[in-house]
Amino acid sequence: MINKFDPASADALSTADRALLARRRATLGDIYPLFYERPVHVVRGSGVRLLDADGVEYLDAYNNVPAVGHANPRVAEAVHRQLTRMNTHTRYLQDGVVDYAERFLATYPAPLDHVIFTNSGSEANDLALTIAAWRTGRRGVIVTRMAYHGTTALLAGVSPENGPSMPLAPYVRVVDAPDTHLHGEHAAEVFADGVSAAIADLQASEFGVSAMLIDTILSTDGIYPGERGLLAEAFRRVQAAGGLVIADEVQPGMGRLGEHMWGFQRHTDAVDMVTSGKPLAGGMPIGSLVLSSDLSDGYARDHRYFNTFGGNPASIAAATAVLDEIEDRGLVAGSLEVGTLLREGIRAASAGSALVGDVRGSGLFVGVEMLGADGQTPRDTARLMVNGLRDRHVLISAVGLTGQVLKVRPPLVFTAEDTAEFLSVYGDVLADVEKEGAGS
Amino acid sequence: MINKFDPASADALSTADRALLARRRATLGDIYPLFYERPVHVVRGSGVRLLDADGVEYLDAYNNVPAVGHANPRVAEAVHRQLTRMNTHTRYLQDGVVDYAERFLATYPAPLDHVIFTNSGSEANDLALTIAAWRTGRRGVIVTRMAYHGTTALLAGVSPENGPSMPLAPYVRVVDAPDTHLHGEHAAEVFADGVSAAIADLQASEFGVSAMLIDTILSTDGIYPGERGLLAEAFRRVQAAGGLVIADEVQPGMGRLGEHMWGFQRHTDAVDMVTSGKPLAGGMPIGSLVLSSDLSDGYARDHRYFNTFGGNPASIAAATAVLDEIEDRGLVAGSLEVGTLLREGIRAASAGSALVGDVRGSGLFVGVEMLGADGQTPRDTARLMVNGLRDRHVLISAVGLTGQVLKVRPPLVFTAEDTAEFLSVYGDVLADVEKEGAGS
Repeated sequence: MINKFDPASADALSTADRALLARRRATLGDIYPLFYERPVHVVRGSGVRLLDADGVEYLDAYNNVPAVGHANPRVAEAVHRQLTRMNTHTRYLQDGVVDYAERFLATYPAPLDHVIFTNSGSEANDLALTIAAWRTGRRGVIVTRMAYHGTTALLAGVSPENGPSMPLAPYVRVVDAPDTHLHGEHAAEVFADGVSAAIADLQASEFGVSAMLIDTILSTDGIYPGERGLLAEAFRRVQAAGGLVIADEVQPGMGRLGEHMWGFQRHTDAVDMVTSGKPLAGGMPIGSLVLSSDLSDGYARDHRYFNTFGGNPASIAAATAVLDEIEDRGLVAGSLEVGTLLREGIRAASAGSALVGDVRGSGLFVGVEMLGADGQTPRDTARLMVNGLRDRHVLISAVGLTGQVLKVRPPLVFTAEDTAEFLSVYGDVLADVEKEGAGS
Repeated sequence: MINKFDPASADALSTADRALLARRRATLGDIYPLFYERPVHVVRGSGVRLLDADGVEYLDAYNNVPAVGHANPRVAEAVHRQLTRMNTHTRYLQDGVVDYAERFLATYPAPLDHVIFTNSGSEANDLALTIAAWRTGRRGVIVTRMAYHGTTALLAGVSPENGPSMPLAPYVRVVDAPDTHLHGEHAAEVFADGVSAAIADLQASEFGVSAMLIDTILSTDGIYPGERGLLAEAFRRVQAAGGLVIADEVQPGMGRLGEHMWGFQRHTDAVDMVTSGKPLAGGMPIGSLVLSSDLSDGYARDHRYFNTFGGNPASIAAATAVLDEIEDRGLVAGSLEVGTLLREGIRAASAGSALVGDVRGSGLFVGVEMLGADGQTPRDTARLMVNGLRDRHVLISAVGLTGQVLKVRPPLVFTAEDTAEFLSVYGDVLADVEKEGAGS
């Protein structure tokens, strides 16, 4: 984890936070790392703001889960209303889950007309790979070099971002993400050729090609939106080899990229399954696997899948409220508009800087590629930026092969004013990091 | 699935329900089966009651998720309050999740002092098996013959209840559940010997013994509470072979068995990991893996695990309210008291019947072993009972090797009056099924 708190530096925290940290460590333990050199102790939120225990306000330019804003009242009321009525499972006939499924599926292109609800993107990805293995009769999976697809044992095996202590499954082939910074207009071709090599390698193995599982903005690889169509040729090659393309829309999905509801739509409609999770329901646990009836009902003929909380009325009520908010407030168009301001603003604010190599993004998902300087690696400067922003109460994080790319991914309700505030602080912090670098 | 609606018999439903069913099939598809020959279309709930779309009230003697009652106001208010404040993830420092972790862990015996929150029992079981494989360096897993442990690919491989079309993983060994009906006082010994054979078989294989994963009341195997200590010797043998014992408390846990908070405590405190999910948070998605700090922090040294929604404040607020309700209303003692009434009442009501072979249980978890008669299998009579009760607006289901065991597992707020109502209907339906049998 790139942006990780080191418990050895707890001395910098308040007495109260140190006490809470000690209780946290005694119960949740080391498996629960915290963000930032000085963790943020959050107690309230509203819109794009988080408040800490001392009443300090933070501008949230990082979280995609509260896509429609922290503590969104419409989400809170919808869940409350549902919980005062009932909250049970899908083995009883219910209206809400069907109403939502219809609206949700209407945001997907044909033939993606069935949905299976889970509790997380992980559960959705796990099932998607299982269905792909069933359909193809093969097991080989292609992922990108820093891909992260979730928490289950199956997904840990296809998530190289976890690092070498969590080895990949033998049937996995890793390809370089389409690095538009490095390869420019050739990125699509270089990427497709990498995928072809992986296909050939799998076909020569006992595994064959079952699926390519891919985040359609390559979030953990370093955020590569690329030109429209960037991924299309690679997808065609996977499908030509009999494999299925699974678009992981946990990060780019739900309108974030500003042009469509789903990231894959920037490149092609021809995907076989689509998963999502984080941004669907304002923080209520949910995940989704969308696929054709042919795949879903075909799989159901010989296989059971029941998820107790999957499609529960409270999560569905929240998801419905989120969809209402996105539609009523025009948040997809808003993401494009404000995201463009944000990206161009960052570009302008970085123009004179030797520390910024590239600013890229689509909608409200922006990656800023940091460069090294004066004995500092790009990862170092990215870390300085992330923590410098945090110290000035602006929340972002970093991703990429070495953690060198700033990840700016605010709630979709981020406004032009929020953008101006972000840019002002960003400029100050960048100047500071340049000075620190020069002084070191 | 035993108690499954056949879409071919949709004609028996109302016009409105048939229309909803058609829309449901067009979006959710065949992977979403419904309970009962005539599905129940639920719209509201309160306490142990569910209301259908026509205003008909059902007595819920089946659902353990709403342990503190359907539409529990304390749960609804707690979630609402939290959602109006904020609902984010555990990479910020927060009070609620630590407060709850302390209270929750206080319900477990030493050295089980760390908890990892997930979104489901499935995610918890998946992680538990992964941690066991890491700790032991081995992969072999022992489960019972009709075990069901969850939805992920890893768990499908250790869940024989799914049937032969979902094959078990090669490293799995299946043992017969301790059938107290068949083996009486020898059940513990027969079970332990089965486990010893599985251990020997795994030790002779390339896999070795990593873990035994077991539901401590053997719910899907047919509900075998047994005498206190029933499982202890088998657990000792697993541990003597270097394997870990993982108690799956998704069904028996959270006070249901009426004597302790967790089912394993009826038999022994010596388990290595404990998972739960369903009953923890009144229907809000949550799962838990409880283990020693040695295991949890040891695993964390070389492995990442982050679950976006795991431990989210809204689910934690609900879980806290559920714990408050269980404590303040004395629901563990209540489960013992009402459960005893229920079990003895069913026994009395079944006394003259040739269709009932055994009535067993602990607290509010009762299994009724049906027998066959007049050309009907035990499964047939169980199905007649389940649907007969449903037609008289009492909800239960069936489990067991052939689906021959009625599963009566009401919310923990089930009262003596609810029990009397249940017994009255139970007696009528049993009499009807006997008549039908005699008449066929």
